Amino acid sequence: MAIEVPPGYEPLGEEKVAAFLAAVPAVPERLGGGPADWSVREVGDGNLNYVYLVDGPHGSVCVKQALPYLRLVGEGWPLGLQRAHFEQLATHVVAPHVGRAVPQILHYDPTLFAIVMEKLSPHIILRRGMVAGIRYPRLAAQIADYMANSLFHTSDLALPARRKKELMAEFCGNWELCGLTEEVIFTQPYMVHPHNRWTSPQLDATAARVRGDTEWKLAAARLKLKFLASPEALLHGDLHTGSVMVTADDTRVIDPEFAFFGPMGFDVGAMLGNLWINFFAQDGHATAESPRAEYQDWVLETAEAVWTGFRERFLALWRGGATGDAYPAALFDGDPDAIRALEAERQAYMDRLFIDSLAFAGAKITRRILGIAHNIDLEWIADPDLRALCETRCLTLARRLMLEPGRFRGIADVSAACRSIRSEVRTVGL
Amino acid sequence: MAIEVPPGYEPLGEEKVAAFLAAVPAVPERLGGGPADWSVREVGDGNLNYVYLVDGPHGSVCVKQALPYLRLVGEGWPLGLQRAHFEQLATHVVAPHVGRAVPQILHYDPTLFAIVMEKLSPHIILRRGMVAGIRYPRLAAQIADYMANSLFHTSDLALPARRKKELMAEFCGNWELCGLTEEVIFTQPYMVHPHNRWTSPQLDATAARVRGDTEWKLAAARLKLKFLASPEALLHGDLHTGSVMVTADDTRVIDPEFAFFGPMGFDVGAMLGNLWINFFAQDGHATAESPRAEYQDWVLETAEAVWTGFRERFLALWRGGATGDAYPAALFDGDPDAIRALEAERQAYMDRLFIDSLAFAGAKITRRILGIAHNIDLEWIADPDLRALCETRCLTLARRLMLEPGRFRGIADVSAACRSIRSEVRTVGL
Repeated sequence: MAIEVPPGYEPLGEEKVAAFLAAVPAVPERLGGGPADWSVREVGDGNLNYVYLVDGPHGSVCVKQALPYLRLVGEGWPLGLQRAHFEQLATHVVAPHVGRAVPQILHYDPTLFAIVMEKLSPHIILRRGMVAGIRYPRLAAQIADYMANSLFHTSDLALPARRKKELMAEFCGNWELCGLTEEVIFTQPYMVHPHNRWTSPQLDATAARVRGDTEWKLAAARLKLKFLASPEALLHGDLHTGSVMVTADDTRVIDPEFAFFGPMGFDVGAMLGNLWINFFAQDGHATAESPRAEYQDWVLETAEAVWTGFRERFLALWRGGATGDAYPAALFDGDPDAIRALEAERQAYMDRLFIDSLAFAGAKITRRILGIAHNIDLEWIADPDLRALCETRCLTLARRLMLEPGRFRGIADVSAACRSIRSEVRTVGL
Repeated sequence: MAIEVPPGYEPLGEEKVAAFLAAVPAVPERLGGGPADWSVREVGDGNLNYVYLVDGPHGSVCVKQALPYLRLVGEGWPLGLQRAHFEQLATHVVAPHVGRAVPQILHYDPTLFAIVMEKLSPHIILRRGMVAGIRYPRLAAQIADYMANSLFHTSDLALPARRKKELMAEFCGNWELCGLTEEVIFTQPYMVHPHNRWTSPQLDATAARVRGDTEWKLAAARLKLKFLASPEALLHGDLHTGSVMVTADDTRVIDPEFAFFGPMGFDVGAMLGNLWINFFAQDGHATAESPRAEYQDWVLETAEAVWTGFRERFLALWRGGATGDAYPAALFDGDPDAIRALEAERQAYMDRLFIDSLAFAGAKITRRILGIAHNIDLEWIADPDLRALCETRCLTLARRLMLEPGRFRGIADVSAACRSIRSEVRTVGL
């Protein structure tokens, strides 16, 4: 099937990357030597793009080029190239607030829809590290900081309304990737759809049961409406453990091509939900040589620290100065009663955001088990019965998170639920 | 103070209107005769524009031209001309759904920022009719229909997400008029601001008390955040009784220059709040020859019928077919349990929208008494003590609506509150 592309666009392929980079300002100096000295390696393991790592005698860069179709499915699912534009735009918007938590962008080519950026090394994808049972002691604090800064500074608490509307208008153009989320997260997993897959036959009855669970479907629909019509802040839009690269000390967030103005809980919930998937998946990776019980404790502690750190950091930013048009400082200055009441309002705001985050976490877990895109946390469990058991536990948590998020009074309650589900759910299937 | 305007723009003035219309397609035929035969009369009593009524031997038109400043304040408050663009755009978007509830647009001149439209005759401004104590038996049903159709058909229930994002992006450009609302409705009435005015000295202490009422200010701030970040549907944006023109049989909605994607309750609340202002203001217009007790009953019945009709009509549209991306029909088809649950969800959606509408109604009432722009309902009460009493009653209702909207279990509860406030509040001042 031939896909139409804009004039001048062509997929680079490994062989053309060096020639392309030779003409990009400052990049040849960064790499050192000449194009013949540069090694190029395609490493994209995502679903949407090609990613090339380029090493020269003096330095390295990374080139990410959008493809005109969804790589996961193939050319049968065309996908606009503009997402590369939104990725670099989102990076430019949040970079002043999150510092080196996002890779430095060196160049954007709007004809090739190619981003040249800092190569992250020796970072690996967080999800892979967590499947291998590696601990990242600074992860929680750094992710919490990234989320608090990127979300607070693009919200109505920080941005003047005019500037927020200008940015919102631009990111409305990213409707195609938003539409992908609307379909594959909030719709398809709850209906019969050819893209869905699950551990079969073990979870066949479970998938059918979810499709017949009206309360679950209504919860998904309610979250979808929130996703469609709650532009609280500029989201990353796909903030799972596969969009984070780590070393022992460093945490970097990549791939914001789904960026748009949406509900903050969607980003926070993506991170938390994927941590909880990893918690349940560890039972599929534990061996005598690599027991995972203590690692599971670390995963839950990390999820707790992500939320707690996010909440504290976000509140500190808000207290430190709300420069946006929401909650105008002029109304609450001076009077100690007003200051106390405003603080209570902030706490209530975070309580509401916590509930949103849990519900979205549940949706993100569900789609990874019943929808089109799965996680290696679970996929790499070779024994399908064991995998289906871990997945059953994930879905048990997901349903509670989506249907009754308000019953978790704090993040420790979710950890407790994870532990009790793990010990109580002993058979496959809901 | 000189205000910069785009090249080609000039205020028409009565003398140039005929020459302008002579070159507009189809308009000369509609008017009949030639420019010399056309009478031009400036009638704008709003705050932002000049409005010309033009009569020819065969027919009439209306010309509305944006001025580069806020007419109410004068040239000291410049205001972009683009609002004319958004007015005609909003009219074009909702016209297919509301039929003749909006005036027919005959032409838009983007250089002069002038809209040529159908002249409404013998319509008068609803607010004027209501101050005179005139009943409009079809008003409630027609306004309810207008609101249900315009809001439903531009929401995520009806519009595919892509189309909604395209429209939203465009209306983000109307940030300047949104900013006016953010300031004069949700901020200034709650602080010391040179634009504020009120019946003085009678309400001096009351205005100070509101400025010191933290709970009231927090309620206003919460509503402001909702106004900033809840693009549920394309709002009229200024849907008070001065934006409606009526005859005994006919109801037409004009002046959507504040249009943008916002919370539906803002439109519904604007209409309800202004009806309730009129209810309380009637005591300032009652005379022996024109007693108003029965008219007050009619006003409350009308407010009830507006909400009830809106709720029923909106639900009927939703049941009749949700063509948007929210609450996807594919998830809830067939199964009677799912259909029942979806109906309960719809009812809960309307309950939430009712609470929003009441809270916004309270904000719209408050600003008309303590902010920059007042209503003739109250302004035309000559006796300032009597006016201040009516205004005290309005504010008493407004505070309840804003702080505890959830305590009104239905629209009849608000009518009951109006009646009890009217009989119980006998002295000026909160």
